[in-house]
Amino acid sequence: MTAISFDILARSKTSRARAGVIHTMHGDIETPAFVAVGTKATVKGVSVPQLRETGVQTLIANTYHLHIQPGSYRVARAGGLHSFMGWDGPILTDSGGFQVFSLGAAYGKSVSKVTRDDLNEATTTASVYDPDVASQHGKLAVIDEEGVSFTSHIDGSLHRFTPERSVEIQHELGADIFFAFDECTAAEADHSYQREAMERTHRWAERSLKAHRQNIEAQTTQGIFGIVQGGRYEDLRRKSARTLSGMEFDGYGIGGSYEKRDLDTAVGWVTEILPEDKPRHLLGIGEPEDILQGIERGIDLFDCVQPTRLARTGTVYGPGGRKFMITAATHGGENEPIDKNCSCSTCHTYTRSYVHHLFKSHEMLGATLASIHNLHFLVSLVEKERTKILA
Amino acid sequence: MTAISFDILARSKTSRARAGVIHTMHGDIETPAFVAVGTKATVKGVSVPQLRETGVQTLIANTYHLHIQPGSYRVARAGGLHSFMGWDGPILTDSGGFQVFSLGAAYGKSVSKVTRDDLNEATTTASVYDPDVASQHGKLAVIDEEGVSFTSHIDGSLHRFTPERSVEIQHELGADIFFAFDECTAAEADHSYQREAMERTHRWAERSLKAHRQNIEAQTTQGIFGIVQGGRYEDLRRKSARTLSGMEFDGYGIGGSYEKRDLDTAVGWVTEILPEDKPRHLLGIGEPEDILQGIERGIDLFDCVQPTRLARTGTVYGPGGRKFMITAATHGGENEPIDKNCSCSTCHTYTRSYVHHLFKSHEMLGATLASIHNLHFLVSLVEKERTKILA
Repeated sequence: MTAISFDILARSKTSRARAGVIHTMHGDIETPAFVAVGTKATVKGVSVPQLRETGVQTLIANTYHLHIQPGSYRVARAGGLHSFMGWDGPILTDSGGFQVFSLGAAYGKSVSKVTRDDLNEATTTASVYDPDVASQHGKLAVIDEEGVSFTSHIDGSLHRFTPERSVEIQHELGADIFFAFDECTAAEADHSYQREAMERTHRWAERSLKAHRQNIEAQTTQGIFGIVQGGRYEDLRRKSARTLSGMEFDGYGIGGSYEKRDLDTAVGWVTEILPEDKPRHLLGIGEPEDILQGIERGIDLFDCVQPTRLARTGTVYGPGGRKFMITAATHGGENEPIDKNCSCSTCHTYTRSYVHHLFKSHEMLGATLASIHNLHFLVSLVEKERTKILA
Repeated sequence: MTAISFDILARSKTSRARAGVIHTMHGDIETPAFVAVGTKATVKGVSVPQLRETGVQTLIANTYHLHIQPGSYRVARAGGLHSFMGWDGPILTDSGGFQVFSLGAAYGKSVSKVTRDDLNEATTTASVYDPDVASQHGKLAVIDEEGVSFTSHIDGSLHRFTPERSVEIQHELGADIFFAFDECTAAEADHSYQREAMERTHRWAERSLKAHRQNIEAQTTQGIFGIVQGGRYEDLRRKSARTLSGMEFDGYGIGGSYEKRDLDTAVGWVTEILPEDKPRHLLGIGEPEDILQGIERGIDLFDCVQPTRLARTGTVYGPGGRKFMITAATHGGENEPIDKNCSCSTCHTYTRSYVHHLFKSHEMLGATLASIHNLHFLVSLVEKERTKILA
C-alpha cells in the first residue's frame, strides 16, 4: 500500500523525457514539474494565493530548518505542514541531510549545488555558507554509523539526526512526499570517501524505509523517496542507482553536490538505471538549461532556490529567458512589463519602471513581484516541455 | 467645477460625528474612513489584491518621497499613480510639507505626529529621524516666502518646493485628492513663530489653489484640500480654520505636529469652524482611541503608518484591540488566530503559531500577514463607527 502513485502519459521519441502525473493525497503533480522551495514553510516573499497564481503545483520544505524552528511537534500540533502554512496542494520535505552537512562538517569545502561562472558564488550559497554564522560553530557535524550530531546554526544547541529520527520528524511534518536521510558529501571528496558515504547512505536508506513502514498511518498518506549519491564517480553513481532501485521506494531523488560539468554525466548514468515507473527528483537544480537537460535525461521533478533568491536581489528572467538586473538605471523609465510575452500577475499589472522603483526604494513588494515572475517563468518553461512531450 | 464631491448621509445625535460619501473619479470613499499609507506608491509589504482584501478604500502616497524617487515625471509617463502602482481606487497625495520640514530644518526638534508614552518613540519616528541619514545633511530645509529649499535625504541633492511646484508635482502624480503645500512647524515652536508659519501657510494655500485652477485638466479630475495649521494655540488654530474656510478648497486637512494632549483641543477648535459640507482629514493620526475621538469631533478621514509599521516589528492588534507582540515565546504554540473574532485573511487562514514562526525565521511573509491584519483591524474599527452613525 502506497500513498502516492505515478502514471506515465507519454514519452519523447528523441530523448528519455517523459510526461506523467504523480497522484498524492493533496492532489496531482503533472510532471515534469518545477517545485517551489519553501524551506521554512513559506516560499520567501510569496503568499499562498500569490504562489497559486504562478502556476506552481507543489513546494518543498526543509526538515533541518523546521526542526530547528519552530520544531516539528508544533507543525504536527497545527495538523501538519498543509494546515500550518495554508497550502492544500502537494508538499515535499527534504530529509535535512544536505543542510546538516553543508552547515556542519563540510563547511569550507563545497557541499553546494551547481556553481556557475555566470553567478556570484557568494550569492548562490549565501544561506548555506554565511561566514558570520558558520564561524561561530566550527566543525559541527560529526558522522557515525548511527547518524549525525550537529549544532544549530541559529543558537548552537546540540541536535542529532538518525535515519529513524529524520523519518519521524518528516512524519510529524506530514508532507505528501519525503526523502530518506542521506549523507551529502563535498564534490571534491575522493573515491574512497565517496564510496564510504554512499554505502552508509544505502544503509540509512534501508533504515528510513523500515522506519516508514512501522508507521501505518504515515504509510497511507505519505510517500518516501530514496536519494542516489556517489559524487562524480560513474561506478558509484551507477551502483547507488542499482542499490536503491532494489528498495521499495515510491520515487528517487538524485542528490549530492555538483558542478556544471557533473550534471550531464551523473544524471544520465543514474536515470539509465532507476526504474522507469517511479518519479525522479533532481534535488536543488533549477537553472533553465539544467532543467531542459534534466528533462531530456528523464527527470520528473526539479526544485531550486534560484528563482526567488535571484528575485530578492532584483534579478529577473527577461524575454527569451535572459536574466537582467531590474535595478539597473536603464529600466527606471521603461513603461513595459519585465517580459511582454509573460502571463504572470507581475507582468500583467506592473511595469519595469514600477518594479525598479520598488527596489530603489527598498520596498518589500519589489522582491515579491520579482519572485512571482521568476517562479512563473520556470513553471512555464517546464510546462512547455511537458506539452511538447505530450504532443 | 470640482472633481470630487461630498454627501453627508447621517449625523450623530450625541456628538459632531457624521457619516458620508466622498465621490471621486476612481470611486467612492465611505466616511469616516481609514486611509492606508502608501508613501512610495506601495503600502509596505502589502500587494494591491491583499490591500483590497483588508477592506481599505483608499491610500495616501507622498509627494516628497515620490519626487525624490522615482520622480513625478516617471509616474506621469506611466499614466499617473493609479496605473503606476496598479490601484484603481481613490488615491490621495500629501503635499510633502511635513516631510520637507521633518527631514530638514526641524531635525532634532519634534516635527512628528502624536508621540505616546506606550510607544517606543524611536520606532514611531524612525522613518523621519534616521540619525544615520540625518547627520549627513545637517540643517537642510531653508524657508523663504517663496518656498523651501532642501536636500534629499537619499543622496544629498538639492531640491526646491514652492506651492506651485508642489501642485505641479501632485498634478503629475494624479491622485484624486491632493493637499496644498504647507509649512509644518515643531510642536514646541512659540506663538510668534507659529503665527508667522501659519500666515505663510495661508499665503501658500492661496497660491496652491491658484496653481490648481490654472490646470483645467487637473481641475476636472483632482480635488485639492487645504491644511489647517496653528500648533497648540487656540487663537491660531481657530484663525487658520476660518481663513482656510474662506478659500474654495474641496476639503481640509488638519496638520501639524501634536502631542496626545493637543489632539483633544486642536481638533475640536478646528472642526467647530470648518464648513460642514466639506470632508476633513486628520493627517497622520491613527491610534484606535485617537480615531474614535476624531470621529466624535467630526473628522472624516484618518491616515497613519502605525498599523503597518507596528506590524513589521511583530506588534498586532489582538482581541479587544489590545496590542501584543506576536514574537513573544508564549504565542509560538498557540493554534488560534491572532484574534478569533477577526475576519481578515490572516486570521482566517493562519495561527499565531505560524505568524510567530515567520517572524522568528525572519521571513518576509510575517510582516505581510501582520500588516494585513492590522490594516483590517483599523478599517473595521472605523466601519463600525460609521454603521453606528448611520443607525
